[in-house]
Amino acid sequence: MSELSTDGSPEARRRPGRRPGSADTRGQILAAARETFAEKGFDKATVRGIARRAGVDPALVHHYFSGKEGVFVEAMNLPITPDVVLSAITAVPREEVGERLVRLILTIVAEEEARQPVLALVRTAMTNEQMVATIREFLGQALLGRVAEALDVPPVRMEAAFAQMFGVVLVRYVLKLEPLASTDIEDLVKLLTPAIQGYVGPSR
Amino acid sequence: MSELSTDGSPEARRRPGRRPGSADTRGQILAAARETFAEKGFDKATVRGIARRAGVDPALVHHYFSGKEGVFVEAMNLPITPDVVLSAITAVPREEVGERLVRLILTIVAEEEARQPVLALVRTAMTNEQMVATIREFLGQALLGRVAEALDVPPVRMEAAFAQMFGVVLVRYVLKLEPLASTDIEDLVKLLTPAIQGYVGPSR
Repeated sequence: MSELSTDGSPEARRRPGRRPGSADTRGQILAAARETFAEKGFDKATVRGIARRAGVDPALVHHYFSGKEGVFVEAMNLPITPDVVLSAITAVPREEVGERLVRLILTIVAEEEARQPVLALVRTAMTNEQMVATIREFLGQALLGRVAEALDVPPVRMEAAFAQMFGVVLVRYVLKLEPLASTDIEDLVKLLTPAIQGYVGPSR
Repeated sequence: MSELSTDGSPEARRRPGRRPGSADTRGQILAAARETFAEKGFDKATVRGIARRAGVDPALVHHYFSGKEGVFVEAMNLPITPDVVLSAITAVPREEVGERLVRLILTIVAEEEARQPVLALVRTAMTNEQMVATIREFLGQALLGRVAEALDVPPVRMEAAFAQMFGVVLVRYVLKLEPLASTDIEDLVKLLTPAIQGYVGPSR
């Protein structure tokens, strides 16, 4: 496992904090993170391990990113963080959570630049067991698990809701089935909200 | 475009019907079908074109398979035909169609041998534009379109229902998210039926 640093010198490795604003350092951390997640998955990766591989102080990783989840989101170029999802759903009354989630997801993936990294990740996952494991751990632990807890919904219901939206994104942007592929976002929100609200509504 | 026949001779090509029970002929038709669908997609492929490529009479294709859809299903090793889906949903009262569909799909993909060709097709589709187009045409025209018509449901609702079940299959068997991946089929039927019945229920 090689420890990368700007110029590869031990000096640079030992005094990683001297250029905290450098885009280089940030890029170094992200490159190290990609290698670490690919090797260890999400669960077993640590901020400390990523920092060591990048040749920087762990504090610097926290300076640039909000913890391991934040590094993962940036390393994979994901268009949204679990924190943003959590803020979005806790900002609305419980009976509007389904609609909020559907609109949030459809609006984000409507942007080409936001959608591409997500689809790239799905493509990799379809054929790469280690990447599947990494995504599974991130989704289960950092995203769906936290949302389920925040809403006090059984995890299997969050996963069913996720499956609905995941399927819709694939049908709309990969399979491009018509008419769904060219239906307006607001019409899709109306169509999909009952199912999602059914899953995330108050636990029975 | 080469016309294949058992021994490649014109004689074999001109008298294709002489061994209607031969596994060879059936295999030849399937091989020709795979090439034809890969080249032309589902819409533009014809039984006549497949027969020509296989060096057999079109009647022989109809003898072995129920039309173009039947050839496609067998060529792709799909575990179910549109006709089976249609029979299943027309055999139950309208208010039970959702439950019937959910149980049918989950039961089929629970079998490893039935699931593998479906997942293989999805994997190919994720990275192969021509295969995406072929699957899109088959799904839209031969499967979802016919089901939507049989149920008198707007196609976009059938596609939303398909997206839910497609997502569940991927979450269960590719991502393997727990607890959904190891939830009993009957518990999943209870969980998913309200959403599917919501889509395929009587048109509003």
